[in-house]
Amino acid sequence: MRDVAVIGIGMTKFGELWWRNLRELYVEAALKAIKDAGVDHLDSMYVGCMTSGLFCAQEHLASMMADYLGQKHLAAYRIESACASSGLAFRLGFIEVASGMSDIVLVGGVEKMHTGADATYCLAAAADQDYEAFHGNTFPGLYALIARAHMAKYGTTRNQMAAVAVKNHYNGSMNPNAQFQMKISIDTVLNATPVADPLGLFDCSPVTDGAAAAILCPLELAKQYTDTIIKVVGSGAATSTIAVHQRDDITFLDAVHMSGKRAYEMAGLKPEDIDFAEVHDCFTIAEICNIEALGFCEVGKGGPFSEAGNTALDGKIPINTSGGLKSKGHPVGATGVAQIVELVEQLRGTAGGRQVKNAKRGLAQNMGGSGGSSVVHILEVQ
Amino acid sequence: MRDVAVIGIGMTKFGELWWRNLRELYVEAALKAIKDAGVDHLDSMYVGCMTSGLFCAQEHLASMMADYLGQKHLAAYRIESACASSGLAFRLGFIEVASGMSDIVLVGGVEKMHTGADATYCLAAAADQDYEAFHGNTFPGLYALIARAHMAKYGTTRNQMAAVAVKNHYNGSMNPNAQFQMKISIDTVLNATPVADPLGLFDCSPVTDGAAAAILCPLELAKQYTDTIIKVVGSGAATSTIAVHQRDDITFLDAVHMSGKRAYEMAGLKPEDIDFAEVHDCFTIAEICNIEALGFCEVGKGGPFSEAGNTALDGKIPINTSGGLKSKGHPVGATGVAQIVELVEQLRGTAGGRQVKNAKRGLAQNMGGSGGSSVVHILEVQ
Repeated sequence: MRDVAVIGIGMTKFGELWWRNLRELYVEAALKAIKDAGVDHLDSMYVGCMTSGLFCAQEHLASMMADYLGQKHLAAYRIESACASSGLAFRLGFIEVASGMSDIVLVGGVEKMHTGADATYCLAAAADQDYEAFHGNTFPGLYALIARAHMAKYGTTRNQMAAVAVKNHYNGSMNPNAQFQMKISIDTVLNATPVADPLGLFDCSPVTDGAAAAILCPLELAKQYTDTIIKVVGSGAATSTIAVHQRDDITFLDAVHMSGKRAYEMAGLKPEDIDFAEVHDCFTIAEICNIEALGFCEVGKGGPFSEAGNTALDGKIPINTSGGLKSKGHPVGATGVAQIVELVEQLRGTAGGRQVKNAKRGLAQNMGGSGGSSVVHILEVQ
Repeated sequence: MRDVAVIGIGMTKFGELWWRNLRELYVEAALKAIKDAGVDHLDSMYVGCMTSGLFCAQEHLASMMADYLGQKHLAAYRIESACASSGLAFRLGFIEVASGMSDIVLVGGVEKMHTGADATYCLAAAADQDYEAFHGNTFPGLYALIARAHMAKYGTTRNQMAAVAVKNHYNGSMNPNAQFQMKISIDTVLNATPVADPLGLFDCSPVTDGAAAAILCPLELAKQYTDTIIKVVGSGAATSTIAVHQRDDITFLDAVHMSGKRAYEMAGLKPEDIDFAEVHDCFTIAEICNIEALGFCEVGKGGPFSEAGNTALDGKIPINTSGGLKSKGHPVGATGVAQIVELVEQLRGTAGGRQVKNAKRGLAQNMGGSGGSSVVHILEVQ
């Protein structure tokens, strides 16, 4: 297998973009990435998208996006794994370049969620329809179960969860592409409208429209395109039960742990070797569970670890410097590649006010549903 | 890149299976393929499915199917490209094995279409929603346009199209997994209920539930599992405009031509080197266009070529020995891998009454929408 580099990135502003459609969002991000990389052709393309079928009555995105990008006859694929769709698109692009089959591969993600369709119904398709969604459970409901169990087992508090949202909004206030660019306080979170007890409005990531893209090529070709060589040193993917109630321990996201383990092993690295990370904070409790499953803190200690500032921009391991799903927004199929965009910004030293000092190695973790699938990538500046 | 072999196949019976759901269909096909191959583990899995979101309100199939297969922590992906979903799943499994990243990869496809959802609405998501489907065009309507244009340009007749359906039903009558196992006559086709003029009911593939699966491994490991080594010698994928009206010539399926060209080039072969083929006969006119685009006959001559018996079981190039989508059935996301199942049956010499004599090299062509995407594989017995 060949070594692989990321040589270009692009994304749209994330937000409630009623006037923009699926194809123009994707094409904007893709063209930005193509321009950023300076490539003159593409060999293939992977599009991550969760449920354009339910939101837009539109499938067949590989054809549509290649067509609207003006890439006649491009080999293209649409990848779906709920909210981990574009994290997996990135992984498959990585495998294709590593295999030697293609040199220049575009990986992107898109979701158009403001369409008039019922977002709760559409997103519930990431859960087990027969055993969870049909009976009325929703994603806030499922993560509320996880939060309650984590509170009961480890003594995690509402304030600790709130600290995650406050930190992510602080970071997002410095990200011009973020959906919400305002700082909030612990009180904002604690006094917000309840959604699914114990989770309130500010524990939940928003409904978002947006797209993100990146260009991959063999490491040996990367210097033709850029002076800042960013290598994909680790990639890991794993699944778990789709339904929360079938897990051995609902507070421990085993697919996240396993995908992280596989990425660390490929990279020959440990959690303490990582300088910063984007993790899948679809809910505040999810960030807490994810930093535990990835080994950034002890299992059960994610709450106090976060509250003590260890995950802040100047903390031990800065988490979600982009603002995360909570503040940057969560167009579900675009989130995985948007995390890669943030890693590259940080590794290039172009993250502005949210720049992590000496950022040499970053990790991105993208998750589907309530942890039924997860994918981890580790990027390193050479 | 490593050479890759197909060492196991499995499929469900195709049909109107109201009492069977998405997950049990997939798991049945996958377990049959695992048993057929004799493998004791899987390294990863690709699930092709078009629109389980619209049919079943269920996405996130990578997690669900790994879960219900009992494959804890398996890295898994769901691939979508309308009716070409599992043809592309097969291609991505091929790339992963070729890359050296994985040894034993399960590729499958599934669609559950009898669910109460409106199949015409769900399938229209493979067309351009904004420029085709929203305005009332359906897939029979789009292929009727292609058929009318082909008749006008090349003099193709209704009888020639009918000959495709008659031949495919004859083949399907010998396939125990086919949805329709009855022979029909030219009169059956010509006198059938009109669907979208000039296409009648027997020019159209049916709505079908079903699943299919295959196991891939490196060629060098294949002899551990089987005495009949079947190598993937060619793989090609391509896209075209998603909307029919944006093609230069709507009678010529350029994505099919290009995907075939790429597969032939990889294999170092020409159309005349192929012993038999499964092509995407979602409508009778589609088979005619596809055999032209793949070079099995001259462009414009697909109608008379078919009517003269060249594509029959004992013809120059037997096409759709399985019965094709028309008679075997067309569970859209499963069709691509079901074509591979037929290729392997023929290459193993286990196709019973529909066995092609001296079948050493077969081609499978799977297409999305009205030709917006296409993927071709060539398999050869060693």
